[in-house]
Amino acid sequence: MQLLKAYDFLAMELEEVREIFEREMHCDVPAIADMIDQVGKFRGKMLRPVLVLLCGRACGHIHPSHRTIATVVEMVHMATLIHDDVLDEADYRRRGPTINSLHGNEAAVILGDMFISHAFHLCSSLDSQSASRLIAATTNTVCEGELMQLYYRGYHDLSERQYLEIIDRKTASLIASCCYLGARAAGAAEAVCLALEQYGRNLGLAFQITDDILDLTGQEQLAGKTLGTDLIKEKMTLPLIHLRQNCPAGQRKRLLGLLSEPTPDQHARLLGRLRENGSIRYARACAARYIQKARRHLPADLDGEIRTLLLDLAGSITA
Amino acid sequence: MQLLKAYDFLAMELEEVREIFEREMHCDVPAIADMIDQVGKFRGKMLRPVLVLLCGRACGHIHPSHRTIATVVEMVHMATLIHDDVLDEADYRRRGPTINSLHGNEAAVILGDMFISHAFHLCSSLDSQSASRLIAATTNTVCEGELMQLYYRGYHDLSERQYLEIIDRKTASLIASCCYLGARAAGAAEAVCLALEQYGRNLGLAFQITDDILDLTGQEQLAGKTLGTDLIKEKMTLPLIHLRQNCPAGQRKRLLGLLSEPTPDQHARLLGRLRENGSIRYARACAARYIQKARRHLPADLDGEIRTLLLDLAGSITA
Repeated sequence: MQLLKAYDFLAMELEEVREIFEREMHCDVPAIADMIDQVGKFRGKMLRPVLVLLCGRACGHIHPSHRTIATVVEMVHMATLIHDDVLDEADYRRRGPTINSLHGNEAAVILGDMFISHAFHLCSSLDSQSASRLIAATTNTVCEGELMQLYYRGYHDLSERQYLEIIDRKTASLIASCCYLGARAAGAAEAVCLALEQYGRNLGLAFQITDDILDLTGQEQLAGKTLGTDLIKEKMTLPLIHLRQNCPAGQRKRLLGLLSEPTPDQHARLLGRLRENGSIRYARACAARYIQKARRHLPADLDGEIRTLLLDLAGSITA
Repeated sequence: MQLLKAYDFLAMELEEVREIFEREMHCDVPAIADMIDQVGKFRGKMLRPVLVLLCGRACGHIHPSHRTIATVVEMVHMATLIHDDVLDEADYRRRGPTINSLHGNEAAVILGDMFISHAFHLCSSLDSQSASRLIAATTNTVCEGELMQLYYRGYHDLSERQYLEIIDRKTASLIASCCYLGARAAGAAEAVCLALEQYGRNLGLAFQITDDILDLTGQEQLAGKTLGTDLIKEKMTLPLIHLRQNCPAGQRKRLLGLLSEPTPDQHARLLGRLRENGSIRYARACAARYIQKARRHLPADLDGEIRTLLLDLAGSITA
């Protein structure tokens, strides 16, 4: 995913977001400060802050509240990464060791809590409650998505609709809120805020589908994080659902066997089946359709230069 | 701990708190709703809502914001219980199975997150950000306390000062904030709010010391929760610190051995040593001193009837 143009455009703003982050997370206890620094290394593409800022600029000016909200959503995102790594028992993220692998699950649980807590603390410094209210409603939804995902682990009959409902809640909802909040903080009309929310939602769906494909097909060294956890945790993602649906009845039992015993060898065989069956291609096409949908939601009367950046950004999600 | 008189006095208010809780935590997904119901059973003494409401009433009238804040602090408290049970690998709480023992650590991590998220969501429905700001600052502090406690696990040289710093952050800070917020929402002068905050802080310290004694000396059937986890997790609590400090030099090595191998047999021997050495008595006296201190912080000009309830409530903490 290339956000380079948007980065160049927002370089100074993103630097301020990093500074607000450091200030908010500052801690005098050295052992805690060290762990917070470690999490800071997970900060990657900063997609969510970029969207808050870009959508703000697309609708008008960037205000101080944009930088605060951008920092808050990044903190919320990092909290979900820390707790996700506990759930996935992942060892690597952004080419570095995860908190759980370095300090144990217990520290990772509390540290994730600490990021959520600081996110709301920072958000409550805004003049109005309305951003806090929407962000908290969004984190309610994210938690529901995560719980649904957990509930359906090992359920090989998960439908495409159920899968989309889960990723809509756990991933797309936060990205949608970033776009909505960016537009609203710039004083955009509600219709524009809602259109950008839809842009974000479709972007988020494409993003998660792409991420789920990567978990099956990617190489850990290139991705810089632990992969294959979806199979190990028996999470049915879009390519697997497609394969199950399009598998000849006679081979179904063997497929379910492969899904239940995720050894590296089985993973390799499954990957072969996914490719032969066109299931990876199917999922990629599905992600591409959400990208097109996202682009169509961009209002025509946004700032032209920023509109182009938002169009490009959408394209980079699946690249 | 008997909160009976306060309960009678607040019966209707607490019923409303329960209703706000149900409304806020309502979920249409049956599997998630079931888990939330399970957590609802952990609701025990409702000490924190009681303090918000009593301190409010002690300074004036109970407003709708009191009920909201009372529900929020109870949700925050329940989130910490859920995540604590993950950290402690506890199986029982309030005579029922813990979320982690029923649904696994993963569900417990997310469900705890969900309670935090809903707490901030509910809090952001208030007119002003000020309660959100203080509650989030408090949860920052609680997380620091939890992380410090984790950091010092297995550190047998923990000082009494370090122990008090940890329990001040992880337990007393939230109880102190309950009292402060209750008073402030009733329109009390800042000096009165701060005095009640001190009442709450000292109450909280006494409460945690008493809870730590129970973890060493209590019977699970009576307590209704898993005990002995502090020893298993090598958490140094006040009686153990006292024993270490007052142990003849020649016996120190054996004592540290007992602390490092927490079998039930070793636990029983350690308990014998704690009693012989007066370490349980010492910790009880320490808790009693904090109760006295809490009482002295109660301003003389509070509503007389409520002041008596607050005095009684303090006494019930160590009973």
